[in-house]
Amino acid sequence: MPVFLFELEEYVNSYFKDPYSELKTLFRYHLGLEDASSKQGKHIRPLLTLMSCAGTGSDWQKAIPAAVSIELIHHFSLIHDDIEDNGLLRRGKDAVWVKWGLPQGLNAGDAMFASAFRKLIDLKKNVSDSITLDAVELLSDTCQRLTQGQYLDIDFENRPVVSVKEYLSMVRGKTAALISCSTKMGALIGGYIQEEQCKYEDFGEALGVAFQIYDDWLGIWGDHEVTGKSVTSDIVDGKKSLPILLGLEKSSQFASRFAQGEIAQNEAIIMAKWLQEDGIEKSVTDIYTSWTEKAFLALEKMSCAVGVKTALEELANKLLIRKK
Amino acid sequence: MPVFLFELEEYVNSYFKDPYSELKTLFRYHLGLEDASSKQGKHIRPLLTLMSCAGTGSDWQKAIPAAVSIELIHHFSLIHDDIEDNGLLRRGKDAVWVKWGLPQGLNAGDAMFASAFRKLIDLKKNVSDSITLDAVELLSDTCQRLTQGQYLDIDFENRPVVSVKEYLSMVRGKTAALISCSTKMGALIGGYIQEEQCKYEDFGEALGVAFQIYDDWLGIWGDHEVTGKSVTSDIVDGKKSLPILLGLEKSSQFASRFAQGEIAQNEAIIMAKWLQEDGIEKSVTDIYTSWTEKAFLALEKMSCAVGVKTALEELANKLLIRKK
Repeated sequence: MPVFLFELEEYVNSYFKDPYSELKTLFRYHLGLEDASSKQGKHIRPLLTLMSCAGTGSDWQKAIPAAVSIELIHHFSLIHDDIEDNGLLRRGKDAVWVKWGLPQGLNAGDAMFASAFRKLIDLKKNVSDSITLDAVELLSDTCQRLTQGQYLDIDFENRPVVSVKEYLSMVRGKTAALISCSTKMGALIGGYIQEEQCKYEDFGEALGVAFQIYDDWLGIWGDHEVTGKSVTSDIVDGKKSLPILLGLEKSSQFASRFAQGEIAQNEAIIMAKWLQEDGIEKSVTDIYTSWTEKAFLALEKMSCAVGVKTALEELANKLLIRKK
Repeated sequence: MPVFLFELEEYVNSYFKDPYSELKTLFRYHLGLEDASSKQGKHIRPLLTLMSCAGTGSDWQKAIPAAVSIELIHHFSLIHDDIEDNGLLRRGKDAVWVKWGLPQGLNAGDAMFASAFRKLIDLKKNVSDSITLDAVELLSDTCQRLTQGQYLDIDFENRPVVSVKEYLSMVRGKTAALISCSTKMGALIGGYIQEEQCKYEDFGEALGVAFQIYDDWLGIWGDHEVTGKSVTSDIVDGKKSLPILLGLEKSSQFASRFAQGEIAQNEAIIMAKWLQEDGIEKSVTDIYTSWTEKAFLALEKMSCAVGVKTALEELANKLLIRKK
């Protein structure tokens, strides 16, 4: 993604005008643009936008402003997430709010949010004003969904019971909204009509939900060498992930121990086994499978250049079957 | 402003779709839409937008979506400000983050930020796509300036010395950016060319800076029955307002006591007198006067329907000469 990364860095470097503000430094730090060794994440969302635009047969470079914008929205949400979840580390280094304090961290997230909308307007150089406005509408609707999902995620922490329906509503907002925005955005910029855009959106939506469920699975049964987290960490953290909320509903041994709080690593390993014995892991895998099937079915239905469709299939496979 | 308020409330009530999210409640609480007795603020910014649009001779109702959007941006910034400044109360009741916790407060601000951009797109029903896009660009540039100003405001707290130049840079971002956006937005929607829009912007900019300097003056010498704060409260709070940073630079008795920290109310009264003796109050008043003159001069230069110009002059007088 050298063109995308070049654009992102150029934009961040030229964005700030005030000589007294150091916000650029905070942006560069969080985005991993400080030096060649910084970790930058996988850029899945901008990749999906550029590929989706290419899938329509249009020049993918037209979608670069949108790809940059979507990546910035993703990162704004991470900066604020870290504050909301009290997350101290992000990609192995101090979170922005830890390094610069909560007020500056919060404000840097706001600044990044604003920068994303500003970048999106550059689309008008490549497509019509009408499509550019549709893109702004799509992005702001996506941010609405993101914040609704985030509301639920925070709310779940203090609730004893969360239904699968509520969980899916949360995941659709928190994770799937921006991924489906990425694919739909590409189709929109490529000039596809609403009906075709929705097929790209459906693919992104199902991909996003499946991705999150898989992540939840990894949070308990994943190989820590791959995930970078300790195995069973979601049980130790008391996170309301899908296996855990199903466990609370359907495994009485799991539920009664979980309710007592303060779970050590060695206990979490036993509790993860209870979830398997009581059929929870199978339920999670079944739900996961149904969403991956939805994703590949949606991909199948998309009007998409053959080579691009194959590439999207490969990307989806890479995302969804990381280790199992 | 009954039409504006009706639109704002209608928008907030219809905005959220997710059945599980309670964000609407947080919005209504913060915006004072809960019941008739709730305080809602003065709606200065949307008023300026609607009046500026009327000033061009165009139908002011065209600008309603922008007025709603700007008011939402103002309130998003207040929600986040309260977290950043550790402000517990907002208009006499608990701040959102105090009532719902920091994570939900932060997220509600993000949601309001997104809702503002979504609302702005409704402009396209009233004006061309090109003007609507210019409005989105203006709003996102304004948010850039807002967050730069906020960066400086937070930064100043931990710095021993702040220059007047830096202070003005902060105020232009934190206060004047959204006020100048309000006036420029009205001119833009009214169909004025760039050159004329800039005159409206200049008026809002000077009005905003003067407004903030006056607020700083009130924070030390104001009548607490008018401001609702205790007199000299900025000295007690150790805030880097204009009189204080000038005092730090030019009044040695003030500076040496200020540096020791922990200032009681009765001491603050003495320190406020030192600022007067050492000519600081005069300097503040002089700077204030030069900005009010700039504002009225800019207003003079604006191509603006006579009745509206008189109304804008009255509003400016009300804002700037509240008590002196």
